[in-house]
Amino acid sequence: MTPSALDEYLHTHIPITRAMGVQTLFASAERVELTAPLEPNINVHGTAFGGSGATLALLAAWSVLHLRLAAEGITNRLVIQRSTIDYLLPVAGDLMAVATLDGADLDSFFATMARRGRARLSVSSELMFEGKVAGRLTGDFVAIAEQ
Amino acid sequence: MTPSALDEYLHTHIPITRAMGVQTLFASAERVELTAPLEPNINVHGTAFGGSGATLALLAAWSVLHLRLAAEGITNRLVIQRSTIDYLLPVAGDLMAVATLDGADLDSFFATMARRGRARLSVSSELMFEGKVAGRLTGDFVAIAEQ
Repeated sequence: MTPSALDEYLHTHIPITRAMGVQTLFASAERVELTAPLEPNINVHGTAFGGSGATLALLAAWSVLHLRLAAEGITNRLVIQRSTIDYLLPVAGDLMAVATLDGADLDSFFATMARRGRARLSVSSELMFEGKVAGRLTGDFVAIAEQ
Repeated sequence: MTPSALDEYLHTHIPITRAMGVQTLFASAERVELTAPLEPNINVHGTAFGGSGATLALLAAWSVLHLRLAAEGITNRLVIQRSTIDYLLPVAGDLMAVATLDGADLDSFFATMARRGRARLSVSSELMFEGKVAGRLTGDFVAIAEQ
């Protein structure tokens, strides 16, 4: 998927991403990088609002798993069950979130998908600022295969 | 604080709350209720986007603690360190988040604030839909007293 196709998908189906100014920097079935400018996502301290950071990190995690399932030919509905974010450093500029499937137990996930048509997976993503990890999110998703 | 004063504060200092259509239903030093319409916060499934739900629940938790500190005469800076949300039910309509300080260890929190000028507190909030708890968020905040 091209970055602009993912932008188009997010902006159309999740309109708050337009208001946040979410832009896809990179999108593949292995890695998704999203960014959002500080200005619409600023908080009372003049840094990036934690709610926007968590949303961007969640979108990156959701997107990489969605693209991986699509690449495997699985039309899917992906639902978030639980999300935890640790805020490590303030982000005094544009937000950036990077999600990969490194470390995710994909073999077991795809085996369960094939057998039951639904499976759980935890996907992590990181908020990056000036080369440092500013936040770390783990999202627990349930994927449901659709006909 | 009146609901419209909290709206004004959030919309001015955290502009994404305007795009989300966040509105305060009730605001006191014991309880904050916020709502946001479905339309700007919709997701690919036609229900409320999890990122918006988490943001609304976080704002409610942040607001009730902020108002409580203000009521105690403590000018404060409140920083979120960790946030966890469990999504229990889809929200097929407007979002509503309710945060109280029930169950929070306020005695120990205010004692530490008085002694050290900063303290940690976990605050919970719930997403409500049609009378049921649709999500449950716990935010771990650090409050820093400002001169």
